[in-house]
Amino acid sequence: MATEPPRRVRFGIIGCANIAKKVSRAIFLSPNSTIVAIGSRSLDKAIAFAKENGYPASAKAYGSYEAVLDDPNVDAVYIPLPTSLHLQWAVLAARKKKHVLLEKPVALNVGELDKILEACESSGVQYMDATMWMHHPRTAEMKAFLSDSLRFGQLKAVHSIFSHNSGTDFLKNDIRMKPDLDALGALGDTGWYCIRAILWASDYQLPKTVTALSNVEYNELGVILSCGASLQFRDNKLATFYCSFLSNLTMEISVLGSNGYLRVHDFVIPFQENVGPFYVNANTKFAELSIGIEPAPTEYSIETDLPQEALMVKEFASLVGKIKENGSETEKKWGEISRKTQLVVDAVKASIEKGFEPIEVIV
Amino acid sequence: MATEPPRRVRFGIIGCANIAKKVSRAIFLSPNSTIVAIGSRSLDKAIAFAKENGYPASAKAYGSYEAVLDDPNVDAVYIPLPTSLHLQWAVLAARKKKHVLLEKPVALNVGELDKILEACESSGVQYMDATMWMHHPRTAEMKAFLSDSLRFGQLKAVHSIFSHNSGTDFLKNDIRMKPDLDALGALGDTGWYCIRAILWASDYQLPKTVTALSNVEYNELGVILSCGASLQFRDNKLATFYCSFLSNLTMEISVLGSNGYLRVHDFVIPFQENVGPFYVNANTKFAELSIGIEPAPTEYSIETDLPQEALMVKEFASLVGKIKENGSETEKKWGEISRKTQLVVDAVKASIEKGFEPIEVIV
Repeated sequence: MATEPPRRVRFGIIGCANIAKKVSRAIFLSPNSTIVAIGSRSLDKAIAFAKENGYPASAKAYGSYEAVLDDPNVDAVYIPLPTSLHLQWAVLAARKKKHVLLEKPVALNVGELDKILEACESSGVQYMDATMWMHHPRTAEMKAFLSDSLRFGQLKAVHSIFSHNSGTDFLKNDIRMKPDLDALGALGDTGWYCIRAILWASDYQLPKTVTALSNVEYNELGVILSCGASLQFRDNKLATFYCSFLSNLTMEISVLGSNGYLRVHDFVIPFQENVGPFYVNANTKFAELSIGIEPAPTEYSIETDLPQEALMVKEFASLVGKIKENGSETEKKWGEISRKTQLVVDAVKASIEKGFEPIEVIV
Repeated sequence: MATEPPRRVRFGIIGCANIAKKVSRAIFLSPNSTIVAIGSRSLDKAIAFAKENGYPASAKAYGSYEAVLDDPNVDAVYIPLPTSLHLQWAVLAARKKKHVLLEKPVALNVGELDKILEACESSGVQYMDATMWMHHPRTAEMKAFLSDSLRFGQLKAVHSIFSHNSGTDFLKNDIRMKPDLDALGALGDTGWYCIRAILWASDYQLPKTVTALSNVEYNELGVILSCGASLQFRDNKLATFYCSFLSNLTMEISVLGSNGYLRVHDFVIPFQENVGPFYVNANTKFAELSIGIEPAPTEYSIETDLPQEALMVKEFASLVGKIKENGSETEKKWGEISRKTQLVVDAVKASIEKGFEPIEVIV
């Protein structure tokens, strides 16, 4: 006898990372999801995490990740584990028919990601990476401007920065400082967003080549603490980015077109939770005598009832719900976008390793 | 018998370029300068220019550039001629003991500039390039922030954009489209400002190498219409820029430090003449749960009574006045800054010509 399908997608969380606090809140804020299980290598830690983050009394706490995957009440897992553990646990989750919301960077390289995507595909489970800003309504509004041939025109140049300077304790102890846990360092943690921003602005056209810029900083274990790169496309546009663990918290995209310009200063995490601003110049000319410009720039403020991370969960849970309740196909675009991002991450890393040679991006 | 020294520095203008209208206005706005002569290859053009731009009736109009240089009432010349003519006319002006305010790009290459600077030096006349934004009081305020070790810290990354899309007529007919007149194209016209911005942010430290980024666009005569480059310094900071005649009017500097971040969106020509804004983040941290940031960014608005181009003229005329009236030495820093800018322009051009190889910057 078929049971009534659940109205909310039931999440299990694997690992008690800091970011899991924010995503737990997002799952509770989203109208179509809830949390039914949390797993940690330490049962005490799982229990404490559930309590601290307001999990319902009915939510199970487990002393292992596997127990979460074996819980029949879990529809989907959110995986905030260190990157080096993604392959193992995302693949296992998919094999156990759990839909996968995977923290970024999604894998150590595209070979690993392909195994994860194949596992999701063959099990018919939804995959999505946890790149939250993709789901803010501002992102769609910005895209509408970039798609406006009169006001923006042809894309010419993109630049993105994501850096944070999280202090001595972070630089000493965070998992992102340990090559066995998160071998991609700042490139995976912050460069991921810059690369995604560039691909987003380019309608997910991949660059022809990627060239790292020779200013890489490393910690004593060889983990990248800051780097930059330029991306060369088949047309004449240029993209550059800079990512770092050693610079002030900064989250920029600037997109230059033949007829317009867009900038956003808080693309990764909006300065305010309920509103996302961006700034546009269109068909800007020098005023008479080249004194000032016409017209003045415009600020847009895009409001949102739910924070972007809750909108991400809502979108993911909506896809999962359709698969579970209507037998819909999985949505492939999230895997495709993730894969393109990882391809560029890999190319930057390869370019650094090969002494800043241009690296061809091979799909 | 010594004549009473003039209270205002008396300018002669060589050539009736569009930019000379703006600078003529600036000379009249500045309290210590005036215009006493204008020369063009066409006397009619010189007469019309003087009339259209409100020159006093006493101002002479000449049918040649040389006549301006031979006028004993002229203390200083402003040279807005095409770049390829700078060497000839700036050197001649200096030899005729006229102080030289030279439009940018100042020369086709540093070899030419060195001849100009040597001529100024040996004649004891003041040299300055007409990079107006250097003289806005905002520029000093921004520099004060960049020099604040607590709020900004160590310089890590600079990015600058200057582009304008001045339409079909500009792209067809402007002197900046003709290799015999202005062989540096967008690199000289707009890249000049980006390079200056990077050097300014770096306290005029020269990069070790410069690498053009392979997205150069040319017109059918081989003039650069857009390009970008990265600059590598002896420390780990990175600088990148993008300059273009094919993109919307955009004038950006973003400067990232270990503890702070500064951005300005109208650095070349302020959107408003009497006020220059810039934006600062300092010691920015993620708020609790990584939702939002603390503290919020700060906007500074720096007011100015005189437009930046009048402040430039005022500074130049003040130096000229001191030389004329007090026998002061010339101020060397303007030549040094100009030369460093030109060195980087030359390196970008060489890198483009050598297939985007890194070019060592040799002083």
